[in-house]
Amino acid sequence: MKVNGTHYRSLWWNTDLEALEIIDQRSLPYEFKTQSVNTMEEYAAAIVEMRVRGAPLIGATAAYAMALAMKLDPSDANIDKAWDYFHETRPTAINLRWALNRSKALLLPLSPDQRAAAALQLAHEIADEDVDINAAIGRNGMALIKEIAATKKPGEPVNVLTHCNAGWLATVDWGTATSPVYHAHNAGIAVHVWVDETRPRNQGALTSWELGSHGVPHTYIVDNAGGHLMQHGLVDLVIVGTDRTTNRGDVCNKIGTYLKALAAQDNNVPFYVALPSPTIDWTIADGVADIPIEERDAHETSHIQGTLPDGTLQSVKVTPDGTPSGNPAFDVTPNRLVTGLITERGICPASEQGLREMFPELASKAGGV
Amino acid sequence: MKVNGTHYRSLWWNTDLEALEIIDQRSLPYEFKTQSVNTMEEYAAAIVEMRVRGAPLIGATAAYAMALAMKLDPSDANIDKAWDYFHETRPTAINLRWALNRSKALLLPLSPDQRAAAALQLAHEIADEDVDINAAIGRNGMALIKEIAATKKPGEPVNVLTHCNAGWLATVDWGTATSPVYHAHNAGIAVHVWVDETRPRNQGALTSWELGSHGVPHTYIVDNAGGHLMQHGLVDLVIVGTDRTTNRGDVCNKIGTYLKALAAQDNNVPFYVALPSPTIDWTIADGVADIPIEERDAHETSHIQGTLPDGTLQSVKVTPDGTPSGNPAFDVTPNRLVTGLITERGICPASEQGLREMFPELASKAGGV
Repeated sequence: MKVNGTHYRSLWWNTDLEALEIIDQRSLPYEFKTQSVNTMEEYAAAIVEMRVRGAPLIGATAAYAMALAMKLDPSDANIDKAWDYFHETRPTAINLRWALNRSKALLLPLSPDQRAAAALQLAHEIADEDVDINAAIGRNGMALIKEIAATKKPGEPVNVLTHCNAGWLATVDWGTATSPVYHAHNAGIAVHVWVDETRPRNQGALTSWELGSHGVPHTYIVDNAGGHLMQHGLVDLVIVGTDRTTNRGDVCNKIGTYLKALAAQDNNVPFYVALPSPTIDWTIADGVADIPIEERDAHETSHIQGTLPDGTLQSVKVTPDGTPSGNPAFDVTPNRLVTGLITERGICPASEQGLREMFPELASKAGGV
Repeated sequence: MKVNGTHYRSLWWNTDLEALEIIDQRSLPYEFKTQSVNTMEEYAAAIVEMRVRGAPLIGATAAYAMALAMKLDPSDANIDKAWDYFHETRPTAINLRWALNRSKALLLPLSPDQRAAAALQLAHEIADEDVDINAAIGRNGMALIKEIAATKKPGEPVNVLTHCNAGWLATVDWGTATSPVYHAHNAGIAVHVWVDETRPRNQGALTSWELGSHGVPHTYIVDNAGGHLMQHGLVDLVIVGTDRTTNRGDVCNKIGTYLKALAAQDNNVPFYVALPSPTIDWTIADGVADIPIEERDAHETSHIQGTLPDGTLQSVKVTPDGTPSGNPAFDVTPNRLVTGLITERGICPASEQGLREMFPELASKAGGV
């Protein structure tokens, strides 16, 4: 999406340097810095230090990392060595492992002299596929916004509420939950986004930066505010992303998503989840019972990062000495609270049947659910 | 309640100095400082600068301020002058006006030479009444905690979730929502409190400080976490305070309360409101429709205060430049989500009938609702 009028992806290939360009997301939303990556160590550092973040973006980065490994040493032994080396950078990231496996499966049957080019080609494909999926989610979701816009007075915006950052920074472009918003805005539909702060890590600041950079009207609110706004008719539609969705449409997403889903239901506000099919976990049904929730470092809750008046980044402690903090990172929104799933193929009900009919080949591959 | 083993009220009379002692709450939860107040200007500053905060505490402070005014000049003219002077300090605070009116009504019929002593006596009474009301709320609410404790294994605590600071710092002692917790803890019942951070002003830090100082086990969590905790059986009971309650039991409290009430209902967790009868507004029924919600300064949302590693207080900005922030300060929880109201007279349903039967004389005085 656009930054100061220029279109960016969150990564892109620099053919002159034969290097990957990334945005150093650690300094966002305060500073926009890009950098070239072209050593094994730099790739690893980009992932470990979260200069790149978000499942699809990590996957694409890993695919480019494998291409570099093949350029340096296209042997069978180095495929395994590079796989291990990059897998270690964030061992729990599903998309990282998926991209490394896909690369390895492509490369092993090839002769070593073909591997560097093939790995690079695959990385381009993985990046483009992500953009295509998100663009399709955007077109499908835009239809919902368009419908609501038709009921508004001229110039009155459609108010969308979102939680966390399921934006283009977490993908290669468009984002997932933000893609319908960007598509609507680009199509000239008046849209305004209520951006949940999303404590503890305040990813709402990233979403605000994205939206502001692209020119989309938005307002940053604390996570407590959404229910009140819905009670007063100030939210037309909720769209959130998902980290993992069960085969019946239970949605595991950033902590607090469930509270917004409850408020949406209580106020008859449609609650949609932007769902790229790779995030469906076909092996489980009951999300609350079966998805283990990561308890992250309590420091994220007890401290908050922001800027001082001179622009310096600074972390402050918000709890009294001696007070313990808890930090469950995700929660599960049961499918009964989800109005629909916006996928790359269209919008389907959050149900076993809905998902199976939308993705029959994936459902049957997973064991005939 | 206790601070470092010593019992404190949030204000008390120093007979030697003939001055009011207060806790300067601006430096909490980081530093515990008390100070004497014995000039008109100091009283005004204590209220304006929010060294004292919380409706009951402001009311009691104003009553002591009137006592000082009568000591300096017990004339009829000065009753009005002092009323105006102190009313200006926080013109929208209901309890401030109530205490000033009560003092004025008592003083006017008296001869000037009786006024200083009578005004001081009234201030003591107002402070003691607040303590009595909150103690009664605590005893009544403790019964709920005791019942749950009886279903637990030995040593397993009753988990109470609270939002904002309806603690002793906001009253003269005990607090409202915290009073049942303190009573249970003092009675030897194992209790643990999940303390909502309560963005934007993070009053959860005050509640944590209170609980920690009195020795009550607690955990500070972000406002997003409560729903997840309830889904997993980790919350036995929610108790919150209220700023204003309608005659049918709709509850206006700190922004985000409504989201916790929804989550409690969805998970069959009892949701109680600690309600001193003076906060009932007998003139309105439908809280969502008829209670105007204050939109406070956006700076409270865009900035957060905390401490640097050396202990210095510092405010940081958490939003990107150019991003607007919203800051609705309260929301309304409809009575259908409230399990019961814990009043000084007992626990009643959140309904017109429930409140009328509990406080018949107040209900009829308000016009026979």
